[in-house]
Amino acid sequence: MSEDNQIDEIHPTKRAVAPGIEKILYKAIPVLDHGFVRVVDYMGDDSAIVQAARVSYGKGTKQTNQDRGLIQYLMRHRHTTPFEMCDIKFHIKLPIFIARQWIRHRTASVNEYSARYSIMANEFYIPRPEDMAMQSKSNKQGRDNILSAAESEKLLHLLTEDAGRCYNHYQEMINEDIHGNIVNDDNPSLARELARMNLTLNFYTEWYWKINLHNLFHFLALRADPHAQYEIRVYAEAMLNIVKEWVPFAYEAFMEYKVNAASFSGNGVKAIKAMLNGEKVTAETSGMSKREWLEFIATLEIDQS
Amino acid sequence: MSEDNQIDEIHPTKRAVAPGIEKILYKAIPVLDHGFVRVVDYMGDDSAIVQAARVSYGKGTKQTNQDRGLIQYLMRHRHTTPFEMCDIKFHIKLPIFIARQWIRHRTASVNEYSARYSIMANEFYIPRPEDMAMQSKSNKQGRDNILSAAESEKLLHLLTEDAGRCYNHYQEMINEDIHGNIVNDDNPSLARELARMNLTLNFYTEWYWKINLHNLFHFLALRADPHAQYEIRVYAEAMLNIVKEWVPFAYEAFMEYKVNAASFSGNGVKAIKAMLNGEKVTAETSGMSKREWLEFIATLEIDQS
Amino acid sequence: MSEDNQIDEIHPTKRAVAPGIEKILYKAIPVLDHGFVRVVDYMGDDSAIVQAARVSYGKGTKQTNQDRGLIQYLMRHRHTTPFEMCDIKFHIKLPIFIARQWIRHRTASVNEYSARYSIMANEFYIPRPEDMAMQSKSNKQGRDNILSAAESEKLLHLLTEDAGRCYNHYQEMINEDIHGNIVNDDNPSLARELARMNLTLNFYTEWYWKINLHNLFHFLALRADPHAQYEIRVYAEAMLNIVKEWVPFAYEAFMEYKVNAASFSGNGVKAIKAMLNGEKVTAETSGMSKREWLEFIATLEIDQS
Amino acid sequence: MSEDNQIDEIHPTKRAVAPGIEKILYKAIPVLDHGFVRVVDYMGDDSAIVQAARVSYGKGTKQTNQDRGLIQYLMRHRHTTPFEMCDIKFHIKLPIFIARQWIRHRTASVNEYSARYSIMANEFYIPRPEDMAMQSKSNKQGRDNILSAAESEKLLHLLTEDAGRCYNHYQEMINEDIHGNIVNDDNPSLARELARMNLTLNFYTEWYWKINLHNLFHFLALRADPHAQYEIRVYAEAMLNIVKEWVPFAYEAFMEYKVNAASFSGNGVKAIKAMLNGEKVTAETSGMSKREWLEFIATLEIDQS
Repeated sequence: MSEDNQIDEIHPTKRAVAPGIEKILYKAIPVLDHGFVRVVDYMGDDSAIVQAARVSYGKGTKQTNQDRGLIQYLMRHRHTTPFEMCDIKFHIKLPIFIARQWIRHRTASVNEYSARYSIMANEFYIPRPEDMAMQSKSNKQGRDNILSAAESEKLLHLLTEDAGRCYNHYQEMINEDIHGNIVNDDNPSLARELARMNLTLNFYTEWYWKINLHNLFHFLALRADPHAQYEIRVYAEAMLNIVKEWVPFAYEAFMEYKVNAASFSGNGVKAIKAMLNGEKVTAETSGMSKREWLEFIATLEIDQS
Repeated sequence: MSEDNQIDEIHPTKRAVAPGIEKILYKAIPVLDHGFVRVVDYMGDDSAIVQAARVSYGKGTKQTNQDRGLIQYLMRHRHTTPFEMCDIKFHIKLPIFIARQWIRHRTASVNEYSARYSIMANEFYIPRPEDMAMQSKSNKQGRDNILSAAESEKLLHLLTEDAGRCYNHYQEMINEDIHGNIVNDDNPSLARELARMNLTLNFYTEWYWKINLHNLFHFLALRADPHAQYEIRVYAEAMLNIVKEWVPFAYEAFMEYKVNAASFSGNGVKAIKAMLNGEKVTAETSGMSKREWLEFIATLEIDQS
Repeated sequence: MSEDNQIDEIHPTKRAVAPGIEKILYKAIPVLDHGFVRVVDYMGDDSAIVQAARVSYGKGTKQTNQDRGLIQYLMRHRHTTPFEMCDIKFHIKLPIFIARQWIRHRTASVNEYSARYSIMANEFYIPRPEDMAMQSKSNKQGRDNILSAAESEKLLHLLTEDAGRCYNHYQEMINEDIHGNIVNDDNPSLARELARMNLTLNFYTEWYWKINLHNLFHFLALRADPHAQYEIRVYAEAMLNIVKEWVPFAYEAFMEYKVNAASFSGNGVKAIKAMLNGEKVTAETSGMSKREWLEFIATLEIDQS
Repeated sequence: MSEDNQIDEIHPTKRAVAPGIEKILYKAIPVLDHGFVRVVDYMGDDSAIVQAARVSYGKGTKQTNQDRGLIQYLMRHRHTTPFEMCDIKFHIKLPIFIARQWIRHRTASVNEYSARYSIMANEFYIPRPEDMAMQSKSNKQGRDNILSAAESEKLLHLLTEDAGRCYNHYQEMINEDIHGNIVNDDNPSLARELARMNLTLNFYTEWYWKINLHNLFHFLALRADPHAQYEIRVYAEAMLNIVKEWVPFAYEAFMEYKVNAASFSGNGVKAIKAMLNGEKVTAETSGMSKREWLEFIATLEIDQS
């Protein structure tokens, strides 16, 4: 890609610069077997958050507030608009079935590689054996233990063969190679917008994805969560590391007040207060549903034996 | 689906009712080979648009304005907010590669069937022979003539076989039938969120899709356009017919001022004025690029010979 | 307003009907001295939330789930999209300085009375004496004790006089009465879009405001909060009562899992765990800032003496 | 403001830099009597638009496309997403009644000076005599001729006196000077969130306003239009000049295909075709409403005499 040329070009600017993210700008961070995340542009840094918050507080603000403390205060009290003042633009390569989950977040700007217009490359995601996990019985959208080596090998073989065959037929239908050269002059070229339907959902696509920091945190809170599907979580984790380099104070506040935080229902708060007063609370007396109670004691690591 | 039971239930309401759309409520309108569009709920009618416009104009409004004329005025002058006051909720079944185009419209609310959570049905889109068209040479994202019967049959066979085989392997991996019953007690069940990646992009998915009338018009202007891919255009056309029943005045204004309208650039307007004054305008003297000029004379059906 | 005529008109519909809200449809609920909230239209009910959630879970869902339990589960786990499937449209009359706070919520559709186009009425908000509170010293955006009767009377007199005089001059500038009749044939009529700038921020405006249930809950969580300004909180409380009639299960879940819930930071969760294990935690050992610690012990009603 | 210190600081960055806008970064461009617009940050340039468009077109794109031509093509065909890839952040000072119009654009991020939290300055907008125009009779939301010097002077005096008196009473209520010092120790300080309601709508507020280029163009198309109120149009014009420096190709395309363009209805296109064929078209035979016909002949400068 042409941007790679930019890696060593340095320009002068009057804008705020975030030194941490400059170091990784344009560099592709590998994710899964063929995917990546790379930062293509950004706007703002920790001080841009503080600056926006201070315009709200205006002349009434004591300038002695430390930036770090103010950012923590904003995060804790859900004053979200100052975090909208930072933007980041990623170039991402990811399997289509993950792109389908990802795009449900509607607050980003997206330009995706068009399989209507262009020819898809022969690249698809095949899990590692250690990621081939069984359907969870307790959690309908989760995974359980991994398959045995033999079982795994068998299914990985199916996945690989099917994707490969589907790509070959895709190419036969469009009758073009990846460079757009006609393969067989006697054959017709099926419209690309039709032929693409023969590809499986593990084929890779690419997009530019631009989002502000507030909305990115919302995305990361959901997708870096242990309940998120592994194949999207690895992207979220790569982006979390990028955020840490870009806006270290905001990252720290996000970890403390969102990722490592816990929310308790009205009954949950009542139960905590009672227990702190030395009272015994049980599933039955808590007012919670059985399911919520189990989540509650898991979060607080309460021994029920 | 349980909603089908509602078809004959009539409830009293004090809300505005749009008689045209009541007749088709809950009825699935077939699209493509296995898809459909059906209206599940709606809010507002033509008079809701007028009512919202009149709150803006307040006491200063002459009540003698006809509703139809006011709606045309709003559409012509891009006063879009009154059209946001109507909402419609669809239940739609569509191929995944079309769902991927569709979801790029970020202004709707969506609940999609989850292949992480549930088992996909063995239903995929296969074009009719008359829709198997060649890649356009002039328009990279368009179609040209259709394939010969023999060529078409060959490629349709590939599409059908690949989708069928991929589904069989999907089922083998999850080791469950469509009702969730284990097929083979000795085999493991691969997590559904993984197995789904073996399906091809022509498999059908379903969603609830709720949008306000302004944003729906924006969607329809792009997707009912002749340049839209046929497989999404047929959905847009089915929805256009629904809109006609629901809000006939707004539909009429949309057709006149958006669908059948044309926009001309600064140079285009100058050229029209000059020609109306009897002057000769050519590609060279128009100030337009060659491509824009060709679009210009095509729109106005100007003979260049 | 013409809609008032609709109060007693009953129409048949095949749509879902929410009986609780039908009873209050179109009725203006008074707020502050001249304001009101009234429901003008709605779409969906508790079962629409369940229906949208079930399309996601598809055929894999056991239909024995109770609706109430499912709605609580969705709320607890922040599965927000099903709540987007319900919409409500309000007609609201409110002071301009409150409208300015309100409009910061960008996820609604709005049609406001236009003071560019129409003539403003002579109606402005004057607080009751018991609402005339002093500036809080601890909370820069809060209130403290109320003023003495004498002080209050003095300031209320200023507010009333200034608003009244500004309106008289507004009317002198536009040279029209409220019905648009010229007052003095010898005088010019200043453009309404200019004259309006002479009104004070406590004048009332009106708008139609349409929002989906998920975004309404977000609004209510912030604006029905004790830290919200009293003059917007009373509107939020009126709307909370409406929501209770409309979608009783969703309302109940919202109260339990949002309004009455509490979120604790990573350090907060650690502190709770330690205290439940009988350990002593202090401001110093908690890892929290002083301010967060005070909020923490207040939430859990921990005695620090 | 502390940012002013940044004016002469130059930092190295690997990001794309737009030289034109660097020259005006942080500089306040005066608007109206006390307002301004200044750019505080930006992301992207013309090449960022091209880069995003090319990821969509992928390997199928001929790299020989000129950037300028591609940007014109994107604008002409309403391919709007690449324009979302550029962002700009403004610091703006503007009268409250203009802020109320402005904020109706919901696609920006905003942090406004808080009159709940801070003390308002004694600055309000007073039109120049040449801007004191009469209410238009033909256009309910427009202006007509300007007032005579004597009439203008009289009304400007009212505006100035009322704003001044309201501010004095505001200060008396809060009992604080602009620096937050108590004025009279014997008096109470009314809460700022209440006292602010005594200010008139021409007082100035300030905000940070961040928006992407696509949404900015939408804002400018409406607010730089001759039908927009003069007091917002001057802000839009200042921003148009900034855009011209920032992204010259996108600016040029916007002027040609949006600002100087014209849209014609279905009947309008038919009428143009007929006239180009030498046919006579009249209001009656055009199929247009009288109002649309007048707009039509005005746009094309057709003489009806």
